[in-house]
Amino acid sequence: MSAPVRVGLIGLGTVGQGVVNILRKNAEEIARRIGRTMVVTHAAARDLKKKRDCNLDGITIASDPMFIARDADVDVVVEVIGGLSPARELILAALARGKPVVTANKALLAEDGNRIFAAARDKGVMLAFEAAVGGGIPVIKAIREGLAANQIESLAGIINGTCNYILTQMTEREVDFAKALAEAQKLGYAEADPRMDVEGIDAAHKLTILASIAFGMPLSFKQVATEGITEVRIQDIALAHELGYRIKHLGIAKRTAAGVELRTQPTLIPEDRLLAKVDGVLNSVLIRGNAMGQVGLYGRGAGAEPTASAVVADLVDVARSLGAPAQHQVPALAFQFDQLRELRITPLAEIISSFYLRLRVADTPGVLKGITSILAESDISIEAILQKEPREDDATIAIITSQVTEQRFNDALSKLRALPFVREGLSRFRVEHFNE
Amino acid sequence: MSAPVRVGLIGLGTVGQGVVNILRKNAEEIARRIGRTMVVTHAAARDLKKKRDCNLDGITIASDPMFIARDADVDVVVEVIGGLSPARELILAALARGKPVVTANKALLAEDGNRIFAAARDKGVMLAFEAAVGGGIPVIKAIREGLAANQIESLAGIINGTCNYILTQMTEREVDFAKALAEAQKLGYAEADPRMDVEGIDAAHKLTILASIAFGMPLSFKQVATEGITEVRIQDIALAHELGYRIKHLGIAKRTAAGVELRTQPTLIPEDRLLAKVDGVLNSVLIRGNAMGQVGLYGRGAGAEPTASAVVADLVDVARSLGAPAQHQVPALAFQFDQLRELRITPLAEIISSFYLRLRVADTPGVLKGITSILAESDISIEAILQKEPREDDATIAIITSQVTEQRFNDALSKLRALPFVREGLSRFRVEHFNE
Repeated sequence: MSAPVRVGLIGLGTVGQGVVNILRKNAEEIARRIGRTMVVTHAAARDLKKKRDCNLDGITIASDPMFIARDADVDVVVEVIGGLSPARELILAALARGKPVVTANKALLAEDGNRIFAAARDKGVMLAFEAAVGGGIPVIKAIREGLAANQIESLAGIINGTCNYILTQMTEREVDFAKALAEAQKLGYAEADPRMDVEGIDAAHKLTILASIAFGMPLSFKQVATEGITEVRIQDIALAHELGYRIKHLGIAKRTAAGVELRTQPTLIPEDRLLAKVDGVLNSVLIRGNAMGQVGLYGRGAGAEPTASAVVADLVDVARSLGAPAQHQVPALAFQFDQLRELRITPLAEIISSFYLRLRVADTPGVLKGITSILAESDISIEAILQKEPREDDATIAIITSQVTEQRFNDALSKLRALPFVREGLSRFRVEHFNE
Repeated sequence: MSAPVRVGLIGLGTVGQGVVNILRKNAEEIARRIGRTMVVTHAAARDLKKKRDCNLDGITIASDPMFIARDADVDVVVEVIGGLSPARELILAALARGKPVVTANKALLAEDGNRIFAAARDKGVMLAFEAAVGGGIPVIKAIREGLAANQIESLAGIINGTCNYILTQMTEREVDFAKALAEAQKLGYAEADPRMDVEGIDAAHKLTILASIAFGMPLSFKQVATEGITEVRIQDIALAHELGYRIKHLGIAKRTAAGVELRTQPTLIPEDRLLAKVDGVLNSVLIRGNAMGQVGLYGRGAGAEPTASAVVADLVDVARSLGAPAQHQVPALAFQFDQLRELRITPLAEIISSFYLRLRVADTPGVLKGITSILAESDISIEAILQKEPREDDATIAIITSQVTEQRFNDALSKLRALPFVREGLSRFRVEHFNE
């Protein structure tokens, strides 16, 4: 066998420790795959005194991560510190020295990836990021390589485990959002500051990356219509269930004649779809290609070992590419860098879908007639409607509409809101059917 | 861009036509991925006069497939005629000339793959076979590359769409096996001679390939314990449902301290597992790695376009590898060829699992006592038991046992069979729980 592949590891948090552990635990198996051993020779961490849950024997510990990026004699650099800076500067420094990089940093790639991927291309080295989306689920590889024969038409993913855990708890145990969030925080499934997750930003980061490799377009994070789960009420989940749907927080990227839709939002899915049945902290991505039809993947989308599993899989790919000219590499964003194309992002107002609408109305005669008249005037059909028995003097009505643009739906909604018997407390979410 | 990648296509059946169609339909997208165009320049078919559902313009049609394998000026050969011979000779001839090969031929690879992969290795060229298992689902790539950080512990797959379709019909519409099979044949989901599918042989071929890339062992088709779905009765499906299970035909490969289990068989799965919810002609594979935990894939496992989607994805991989030394290639069987290791195959008698058992007994006193005594004497616990109200003078009892070796279970079964009140008509299937 040739000399070992030397890994420089920047970050010794949970994922970094997971990388060290996997490379030790599965050392023999990995060597049998690559034909060489692979060892972490250098590692950098902020707090050198912190106790780690991994064996650091034989690893040179550096306090300055830039030393690993720039100077250390390593074949590949792993960045698992997260955040925009200094991760950006470290990755760019490593690439500038011609070192391939493996990262799990979805925020950085989504927000600043165009520059970073250009830097990797300029040096002809790999920048691998399977761990950035879906933890250990090989979803990047599936889209970029496994479905390379296809024009990808759409993808939809449960790509934030925190949101999925909270919605699952709200669904199964009928606890409200605040309580489910508090429990998720206690279990370590949500951060102390949960906004990145529950407001859909983390999902938008991941969606940005998926859309780029699916459609061959530059990373367009700023154009993602980002909505979280804070507006979902138990009542919506219950009404959706009565109508035959589950509410999931999805990242959706869809290519139509009008452009590319990029959105993260709570979405009603028919209960019999497999995607609707992916519960708890699991992640899942459903991809539709024009040759393959739909293909789905699911598994653990977060956690030290699943994420490290993806990092090390990337390391195996990188190890094979060492010394190979760029034309033998899989392009980082699935398409040759000079073949990426800006695509029009469809504004929300133009996006067509069914909608779910919950109305709280006064319990007076003529209510249904008033509502259905406005929808009919707006040329919106009602696919399903459910009126619950009035409580006190309020009644709840839930409606699933036909396919309609958001603009037309919003216009109708304004008119509905102006009706004297319609009270506050309206919820509205999109409905996606995922028909084969 | 450089010169086009020239594809020689052996076989113009449904999959071959699908390959031609995808390469035309998605030509621009594929060129943007590879940085070169890819065109079928030669094709061979048995019946040259047959009308094809694809555009053959610009393709040189040969009546002799060996011309394409051996002499035609192509960069890569696609074999989609199926069967053992002449596919074997054609692939070996192409490899001998240093031409990489893409094939969907699971039977050939499972039965004669060790020789064929050795030939590819000797010439340092790729032999790609994503289409051999799971149609367009990139399951080979997921195991071989996406989970490369892991020791794969087990995999379980719904890998025969015919069996899954029939069992789904039996479950949902309560039709018996013969009727469901006849309908599947009518719809083209089953062959006129259905034995390869319903007797589990096709699943065993696919399982052989999956086990090899999962565990780094040579292909061991002859050692797969192969059982089909012909013994499954509607009554079993109904009883399983009452006990909280679905019956699926699975290919299972599992590594334990005792060896490797290789088996295809009808299996009870808890109803809430996603694998239990994969219905109709869909395929699905669930893989467990020691870092990742469980990851699942599902999608269309057969049909012209899904299968051709996998063939063309392989062609894209091959196109990137053209001219690259072998150390830059992903090894065909996931591990370096010289690192494949024979592993002990666990004999059925030693395999441990829960069992489902259906007994038809006389409606007389002491029956349950007699049965439970024998199981207790054999040190087999009862996890669940269900006795249906007697019909005429027969009663049906269904039992889920604790984990037990097949040997011990069989010994107990012999004793049960010898009981005077136990009548004919026993069913027994394994139960797998797939706990996270």
